Amino acid sequence: MKRETKVSAAVVKRLPKYYRYLGMIADKGIIRVSSQELSNITGLTASQIRQDLNHFGGFGQQGYGYNVEELRGEIEKIIGIDKNYDAIVLGIGNIGQAITQYSGFKDSGFNIVALFDKAPRMVGKKVSGLEIRKIDTLEEYLRNNSIQIAIMAVPANAAQNICDTLVEGGIMGIWNFAPVDLRLPDDIILENVHLDESLYTLTFYMNNKKDYPGSR
Amino acid sequence: MKRETKVSAAVVKRLPKYYRYLGMIADKGIIRVSSQELSNITGLTASQIRQDLNHFGGFGQQGYGYNVEELRGEIEKIIGIDKNYDAIVLGIGNIGQAITQYSGFKDSGFNIVALFDKAPRMVGKKVSGLEIRKIDTLEEYLRNNSIQIAIMAVPANAAQNICDTLVEGGIMGIWNFAPVDLRLPDDIILENVHLDESLYTLTFYMNNKKDYPGSR
Repeated sequence: MKRETKVSAAVVKRLPKYYRYLGMIADKGIIRVSSQELSNITGLTASQIRQDLNHFGGFGQQGYGYNVEELRGEIEKIIGIDKNYDAIVLGIGNIGQAITQYSGFKDSGFNIVALFDKAPRMVGKKVSGLEIRKIDTLEEYLRNNSIQIAIMAVPANAAQNICDTLVEGGIMGIWNFAPVDLRLPDDIILENVHLDESLYTLTFYMNNKKDYPGSR
Repeated sequence: MKRETKVSAAVVKRLPKYYRYLGMIADKGIIRVSSQELSNITGLTASQIRQDLNHFGGFGQQGYGYNVEELRGEIEKIIGIDKNYDAIVLGIGNIGQAITQYSGFKDSGFNIVALFDKAPRMVGKKVSGLEIRKIDTLEEYLRNNSIQIAIMAVPANAAQNICDTLVEGGIMGIWNFAPVDLRLPDDIILENVHLDESLYTLTFYMNNKKDYPGSR
């Protein structure tokens, strides 16, 4: 995969969607699919789809379309979910527990290998077979273990400090559920899930329907 | 609030961020703030901030800046979180339970008033004091209760059917956690939290660092 140009955030956002739809199509036993058929399913235009996939080398063939499994496999590689990742969860409240217990991520190669919390009443408890560790032991843990992904589900006011420890400890990516914008070196990847902002977006459009761009 | 032009999705996405930062500033006892100070905190440019807020009438005063509480109150109204919303949760798995148990939403006027699940082993159990109802009773429930928001946390393959029942039942907005793109009439507001897509975005950038636009 050689490419010169940067892929825009909009394209990156659509890749997981293609991956999901191709999985659905593959599950139905369909072997090949045209950009027009992908368009019908995804609601994106066929030319948009061709353009998006061309960024990564253009897997389609004129008059044939795309081989579903092949395209799915390529996107899997591009997204990087053909690999395995060791992840830790910081903050074992409602969201932290839900993420830890959700088995779907494990199937995709995400292994949650350690849990951390600050509250003494949580430390030592088990979630999904993993004992919750004291947050104070995070630094030492990261010295002794190679972890790629940190899942942050701590309160907003605790997040930046923990984040600094994670960066020091060599983490590569942070999946952040804390309602705060973390400050990070540019080579550490941050992906936010700001649930409060998402809910407020919903209520904004419920109260300002004329601004709503539609569900697609 | 009179305005002629549509507010773009990008502006709408920033409003909850302003609201969050203004809350933090207010908590520190700060009474007024300039767009430049807001810029320093949020990482957005001062002119961007002024432009965003001008969409809604321009609350700032030349040489004074913005009154923190006043601006926060105005944004609260614009977002619609000065009102109360009755919400139900569909699917009481890990995510459904986490959302139900999270008390932060209640403080913002979101009252979760009923829970529904399909699994017989879940029906009748209690989460946060609410008994889980049979999903088959949803239609009847909606006939007898006025619910504004539905929080969807069911498996992907069950989501569209339930969604149709919700639309029939007069729901106004759907906060969807199911990994599926729901099809809805245009006057029903849909806001998706696609956790799988978010996680894949993280791994994409971890594997394609040159495409990463940075954490801001």
